[in-house]
Amino acid sequence: MINFTVGPVQSSDSVRMVGAEQVPYFRTPEFSEVMFENERLIKKFAHADENSKVVFITGSGTASMEATIINTLTKEDKVLVVNGGSFGHRFVELCRLHEIPYTEISLDYGQALSKEHIDAFDGKDYTGFVVNLNETSTGVLYDINMISDFCKKNNLFLIVDAISAFLADPINMSASKIDVMITGSQKALACPPGVSVIVLSENAVNRVKNNDAKCMYLDLKNALKNAERGQTPFTPAVGILLQINVRLKEIEKSGGVEAETAKIADIAEDFRKRISDLPFEICSDSLSNAVTPIHPTTASAYDIFTILKDEYGIWICPNGGELAEKIFRVGHIGCLTKEDNDKLIEAFYDLKKRNII
Amino acid sequence: MINFTVGPVQSSDSVRMVGAEQVPYFRTPEFSEVMFENERLIKKFAHADENSKVVFITGSGTASMEATIINTLTKEDKVLVVNGGSFGHRFVELCRLHEIPYTEISLDYGQALSKEHIDAFDGKDYTGFVVNLNETSTGVLYDINMISDFCKKNNLFLIVDAISAFLADPINMSASKIDVMITGSQKALACPPGVSVIVLSENAVNRVKNNDAKCMYLDLKNALKNAERGQTPFTPAVGILLQINVRLKEIEKSGGVEAETAKIADIAEDFRKRISDLPFEICSDSLSNAVTPIHPTTASAYDIFTILKDEYGIWICPNGGELAEKIFRVGHIGCLTKEDNDKLIEAFYDLKKRNII
Repeated sequence: MINFTVGPVQSSDSVRMVGAEQVPYFRTPEFSEVMFENERLIKKFAHADENSKVVFITGSGTASMEATIINTLTKEDKVLVVNGGSFGHRFVELCRLHEIPYTEISLDYGQALSKEHIDAFDGKDYTGFVVNLNETSTGVLYDINMISDFCKKNNLFLIVDAISAFLADPINMSASKIDVMITGSQKALACPPGVSVIVLSENAVNRVKNNDAKCMYLDLKNALKNAERGQTPFTPAVGILLQINVRLKEIEKSGGVEAETAKIADIAEDFRKRISDLPFEICSDSLSNAVTPIHPTTASAYDIFTILKDEYGIWICPNGGELAEKIFRVGHIGCLTKEDNDKLIEAFYDLKKRNII
Repeated sequence: MINFTVGPVQSSDSVRMVGAEQVPYFRTPEFSEVMFENERLIKKFAHADENSKVVFITGSGTASMEATIINTLTKEDKVLVVNGGSFGHRFVELCRLHEIPYTEISLDYGQALSKEHIDAFDGKDYTGFVVNLNETSTGVLYDINMISDFCKKNNLFLIVDAISAFLADPINMSASKIDVMITGSQKALACPPGVSVIVLSENAVNRVKNNDAKCMYLDLKNALKNAERGQTPFTPAVGILLQINVRLKEIEKSGGVEAETAKIADIAEDFRKRISDLPFEICSDSLSNAVTPIHPTTASAYDIFTILKDEYGIWICPNGGELAEKIFRVGHIGCLTKEDNDKLIEAFYDLKKRNII
């Protein structure tokens, strides 16, 4: 199978080799060193300030989204939440569940966030801004510079879920004054799913320390305390953390985050320029490098997903819910090459020849 | 390295081979089938009733302990919690954090739970009983028949954390009327850490459905709903779930849970009878098959852990906190043989020869 989903994605051979090894015991100085190196490289690639801290949560991206909401926000806050798809909607649900005062900026499917959208909230009593930088469900990348300028001007605590944006699109926590950045092991980190990552600015660390999160498993105060010695409060997904280590060093060796982002951008561009003669509409006002959302104009998106899976050995990424029939997504993250693009494009043209699309 | 810790433990070759493969996309009927099979085999090995349900949480055992507390108990309950070590203490902390009324049965290190301990609470207004069947931190296996009789008599909702007991010591959810059983991927399931498992009786499922857990990530109502179609609400540790599948089928093929438990018991017995001439005291009133807790009478337990790791290529399991110098543990779960025992015993005798112990 070739995997063009947005997670889990394909891993490199060296990452997979770690998966074949016995998982070592981890309450050791040796494993702590691995964790310190993971922290150092994640901070480097996120352009985080020196005093930032990194926490590794054994859980999905949602675990880290919820940990961020309950550990860095309180009922005294009032936050703006960008809701442009299912992940933005999830932040709205999390604020509601945990009684964090919020205002929702609702966007249509595929719509970009504009200056008008946010300027309506300029100079009000907000304290924070919560956004999925790349709304993975719709493939819309929001303008981080515009958001950052607005947050700086209004002194807002900025939470950025960069789950599919980290490494794939440019992010600079320091320059953009991002207080929390979230990502996951199974996106552009290209490791198996099971670990999500939270990078906390010094400001965010202080918020965590002054807050009482009512969840033991997602308590970041405890996680930060254990991270001081390169450990976690509870048994983590040790194997995946070792795979993340191999992968981060691979990226470092191949030119760092800029080279990785350029590689993903190149594969995305190659794919996009080759589908212009197919009955497809790209349906995002603001494309990320990570994923191309496509509306097939002549067939069911879910049928195309199923046929590619069953007859061509290719996974593309279906959408859930009401978009299932309308939209599929093609991911460009993970261990993919232009030769993989060739095979997907060939398969699409074959579907056309067969009058399926 | 040979790994005698209590998790992560050694995996079989076939489980490790799955770790080397690309992780497949999972929102598919194919992955749902794997999940249904995982549920079926976990239920079979736990001797759970037909109407029981299984939920797979991407997270440590603590994630499932907390999910159980917040989804199956309410402020209207009043539970007895056995606190005989760090995991029992964790249940106490969880009840306190989530404001579940509780009474703690505190035991000394290594002490078994007696009939006198629990009879003191007979006929009172309790609604539930919470216990770590094998208190892994001290290697004490509590008497499930005694606990079960007490709970049946008093009509108590019975929560059993069997994290290191499942497969290693006999458990029969149906006969013992256990309402919730918890285990983890990295114990006797012998897969990498990252997934914990909750088996819910019909009674427990009803409690979940009538409860509102204030945590999205640990919401079992949502997990149960998704499990109906063999899926999870959020991206799970797909690779580990596939490894669990291979491992469960391996156990099934080799004679089922009884054969697996007998194998672990045999390795534990072999180890225990061979250490009688060493300066070691076994410090548990009621040993499980999973682990032997040892107090070395002539040396620091933590020093022995470090020397075995650095000079003999062997991991034993250190204790944390105030027991670190006094106690180490030798696990008997995972892919271990009597030949592995040989090497550990040899190493111990070598330490004796060197006057280290």
